[in-house]
Amino acid sequence: MAGLQLPIALDAMGGDKAPESVIQGARLMLKQYPQLRFQFYGREPVIAPLIARHRALAAASDIIHADDVVAMDEKPSVALRTGRKSSMRLALDAVADGRACACVSAGNTGALMATAKFALKTLPGIYRPAITATVPSKSQPVVLLDMGANIDCTSDNLVQFAMMGDAYARAMLGLTNPKIGLLNVGSEDMKGHDEVKDAHKVLRSGSIPVNYYGFVEGNDILEGTTDVVVTDGFTGNIALKTAEGASRLIYGALKEAYSSSTMAKLGYLLARPAIRIALRRFDPRKLNGAILLGLNGIAVKSHGGADAKSFANAIRVAMQLVEQDVNAKITEELKRAGAGQTPYLAQVL
Amino acid sequence: MAGLQLPIALDAMGGDKAPESVIQGARLMLKQYPQLRFQFYGREPVIAPLIARHRALAAASDIIHADDVVAMDEKPSVALRTGRKSSMRLALDAVADGRACACVSAGNTGALMATAKFALKTLPGIYRPAITATVPSKSQPVVLLDMGANIDCTSDNLVQFAMMGDAYARAMLGLTNPKIGLLNVGSEDMKGHDEVKDAHKVLRSGSIPVNYYGFVEGNDILEGTTDVVVTDGFTGNIALKTAEGASRLIYGALKEAYSSSTMAKLGYLLARPAIRIALRRFDPRKLNGAILLGLNGIAVKSHGGADAKSFANAIRVAMQLVEQDVNAKITEELKRAGAGQTPYLAQVL
Repeated sequence: MAGLQLPIALDAMGGDKAPESVIQGARLMLKQYPQLRFQFYGREPVIAPLIARHRALAAASDIIHADDVVAMDEKPSVALRTGRKSSMRLALDAVADGRACACVSAGNTGALMATAKFALKTLPGIYRPAITATVPSKSQPVVLLDMGANIDCTSDNLVQFAMMGDAYARAMLGLTNPKIGLLNVGSEDMKGHDEVKDAHKVLRSGSIPVNYYGFVEGNDILEGTTDVVVTDGFTGNIALKTAEGASRLIYGALKEAYSSSTMAKLGYLLARPAIRIALRRFDPRKLNGAILLGLNGIAVKSHGGADAKSFANAIRVAMQLVEQDVNAKITEELKRAGAGQTPYLAQVL
Repeated sequence: MAGLQLPIALDAMGGDKAPESVIQGARLMLKQYPQLRFQFYGREPVIAPLIARHRALAAASDIIHADDVVAMDEKPSVALRTGRKSSMRLALDAVADGRACACVSAGNTGALMATAKFALKTLPGIYRPAITATVPSKSQPVVLLDMGANIDCTSDNLVQFAMMGDAYARAMLGLTNPKIGLLNVGSEDMKGHDEVKDAHKVLRSGSIPVNYYGFVEGNDILEGTTDVVVTDGFTGNIALKTAEGASRLIYGALKEAYSSSTMAKLGYLLARPAIRIALRRFDPRKLNGAILLGLNGIAVKSHGGADAKSFANAIRVAMQLVEQDVNAKITEELKRAGAGQTPYLAQVL
């Protein structure tokens, strides 16, 4: 991998606040990391004047014109078929062709997944890529996968997610031996459906070189019981969104409380600095940037509603994954688990 | 159904704080509802003196000796096979035999489910019972099922859960036409696995007499987008526990913030009354009591760690389900959906 000598390809048109959020996000990152180079993919007449306003950014960037934009509500299959000249597709092609080290897009999630799988292909030996995100916990951030790329997962998929999550936690969180948990409805061996029980058998057998903790439950995710939580895309997506819903519910109730009386308002003013510090690590902008892990190239998905600061963080995730060469780590894991020896379950029965 | 003329059967030995929490919980309820009658199942030498201390409670109660207690970590199959004289089993038998109108237990969840299914059987036409809980939301409480009784669910199971959830919301929340949502990873028809897509087809077809809203996502649960959220027991259990984890994480961070400086402490003191009012509806004690819905009799599960106030709420849930005759409502729903016409999916294809 050529690493950060290559520019990062940005889908300048994807996301609710694009292209402004993308351009400003890149600008924020360039200030911190002047060695970065960018490629902006999108409608040149729109983005060129916006970029030209920022001298340093303009000097560090190329603009590649793309006629089409994938709509936020377009079906993935349609985007894949008809969007061959979309900003998203061209940005991914640049990674596939070795002209960029990573791609970041805040566009349509389904379309990005489908297009990235098609353009980048999976890493040798990987069955399915997984959307991998980082969530806050009591102690340090927790890696969660799959967040929605795979609705149905076999036990072998889950076992590979454990290895991919392990590699990701090493690359992104700098952990030397991350603890891996498998999400289930209880901690006893007999609990859960066949896929989690079989994956548990494989991971527990020691044949996979990860630090396997065992089953974890929903509450364990944000308690930080393990560094990585592995689950299928259906459950992972719902768990993450439910947690978001819970925090919004509590924040909303507290906000109402703080403004419900003069006393409460005054109390809030006094406690505010401390509250801000305490809640800082839950700032969704700092957690923005999920990778489609398991592909032969780095493709990072930013939240569709991302602002500049938030999009900058998605670029940071891409940068770190390139620097830490996460894909080499995944390939390494697969080798250590015995190349060509899948399916894993058959090995431990 | 004979209703509340019959006593409520209480498993006096189930739960971490039993028998004290059970006895005190019953006492709290009796104060509010002097017409209630109780049967306490458990070790008479232990519970009789505790009950005798409270004259009104003693007068309203019978004590039925049970030699055995189901351990909190006992396997459901073992509890079912060997626990024929357990306090849990005898309490459920009383409901099955028409000697009690409902049973409440804070004991081993798996054992209670297995024993209740065996002792009470399912309502005619119901394939599978579902653990049904109530969670807070932005507006009013939301009914959530299944919370873990069924790890794998067919589309027909989900369709029946929709009807059961509808009956429960009418009985417990007094709604005349509850909105029913089906939990999924997106709101488009093409999203999700086959079971949710098929259940969606059936519910959308209008052949089932519920007010079907469509797919909802994880964040919709606590936003109160619908009055009822239907899902399989694997996803439901994980979603609920993840939400609990999220709230604990935020509460923990805020608690730390409030005690981090003198200013913050003072601020908390000033805002505390308002905060308490705002968070009151999230009090887990007020939400305690999940029913195993779809059985031919009322069996309510209290949280294992319930204190007296919390256990009292589980009794209140049982009482309300008896008064509102939730099982008659479920039977009615099944009839309106066309008795004997299952499987539902075949009808709409």
